[in-house]
Amino acid sequence: MTRKDSPVQSALHEFSRADKSGLYKAIYERRDVRRDFLPDPVPEEILKKLLDAAHHAGSVGFMQPWSFIVIRDVGVKTSVKVLFERANQAAAQVFEGEKRELYSGLKLEGILEAPLNVCVTCDPDRNGPHVLGRHSIRETDVYSTCCAIQNLWLAARAEGVGVGWVSIFEPEEVRTVLRIPSHVIPVAYLCLGYVRQFLARPELESAGWLPRLPLEDLTFYDHWGQQSGS
Amino acid sequence: MTRKDSPVQSALHEFSRADKSGLYKAIYERRDVRRDFLPDPVPEEILKKLLDAAHHAGSVGFMQPWSFIVIRDVGVKTSVKVLFERANQAAAQVFEGEKRELYSGLKLEGILEAPLNVCVTCDPDRNGPHVLGRHSIRETDVYSTCCAIQNLWLAARAEGVGVGWVSIFEPEEVRTVLRIPSHVIPVAYLCLGYVRQFLARPELESAGWLPRLPLEDLTFYDHWGQQSGS
Repeated sequence: MTRKDSPVQSALHEFSRADKSGLYKAIYERRDVRRDFLPDPVPEEILKKLLDAAHHAGSVGFMQPWSFIVIRDVGVKTSVKVLFERANQAAAQVFEGEKRELYSGLKLEGILEAPLNVCVTCDPDRNGPHVLGRHSIRETDVYSTCCAIQNLWLAARAEGVGVGWVSIFEPEEVRTVLRIPSHVIPVAYLCLGYVRQFLARPELESAGWLPRLPLEDLTFYDHWGQQSGS
Repeated sequence: MTRKDSPVQSALHEFSRADKSGLYKAIYERRDVRRDFLPDPVPEEILKKLLDAAHHAGSVGFMQPWSFIVIRDVGVKTSVKVLFERANQAAAQVFEGEKRELYSGLKLEGILEAPLNVCVTCDPDRNGPHVLGRHSIRETDVYSTCCAIQNLWLAARAEGVGVGWVSIFEPEEVRTVLRIPSHVIPVAYLCLGYVRQFLARPELESAGWLPRLPLEDLTFYDHWGQQSGS
């Protein structure tokens, strides 16, 4: 039986073509933005929309482990930028030859240019020690936080706001600068702002860092490594 | 300066009202589905759309660490269900009194009822030992995988397909059943299928497990704990 054989039941909750198109547009046109930020401030009501979108991700045991530190203070941003610079120098050393040259030419963050930075954290202790669904896999709280981040990222794209995720610094140092309690995990440090452009393709793809992998190479059936379905 | 003062530049890449609406609809109407799965198969072309949406998440250093194991085989599903049952009995023990009673009454997975299960994995070794942007925070590969999962979850909602994330089993055991190599992380085990309904609110919220937290309690400015902006 194909879906066409039973259109009424199965298609009952399918979105209209127009609604689907908006979602897929966000998914395919979202970019990790590191350059081309405009100085225009992101209005408070737009920021709230983005944070509310994040807050409506699912979370393990409905624990909602995330918090959002919205950073506009230049002093704080500058301190974070210093952490990035230091970690980035160390990171560059692991690459050799052409790859290191390519690495050095890449712009990997827009901490100071972006009018807004947002640190998304995960509090593993929120709502008590026992979280429904986290008994076997402790990391599910961080997984939920990442789902929230993706919601924010997509909503930002729809609002025309670029988001760049900076992951090159020591979490311990970020925690100190932002005064985050030691048990809370700074999962993502995001740079946000309106942008001159969203690139047609991911920058690391067009710069020749790595190619996009074919989806069929990443898809298995019933067991790892089995490439045709049952 | 508010955004209204400079509509042209900053709003340049904003979606139309219609396109935004489709995205926000997916974000707010997405649910973690554990019941009400219909037996109707999910057509291959819809499955491909969901996996391709996942595959277009951003990833640290463009490493695309994810793979997808699509499970339709009843034998495999039954083995996974057994793992769930065992882990769930252990998990129930940590709750006491009313909470344990409430826990026991919840339906937490639809492994057998859902026509399709998908295990999303993360291969930390993909594309060599050195990943751009993962030098300081090793877990960024798993973070990327979770962003991919959220894309899949939202795309599924738009297609009218329910997704339930089952996190109650030992990853080691899931790895064995699905023959996943020991270095690869089974991040999410998802149950997918068309559904009779999408609930208006998350089930754990309406069942009184936990309330939704007010967004303003989760938002800080410039530093953790600071509740007004600079």
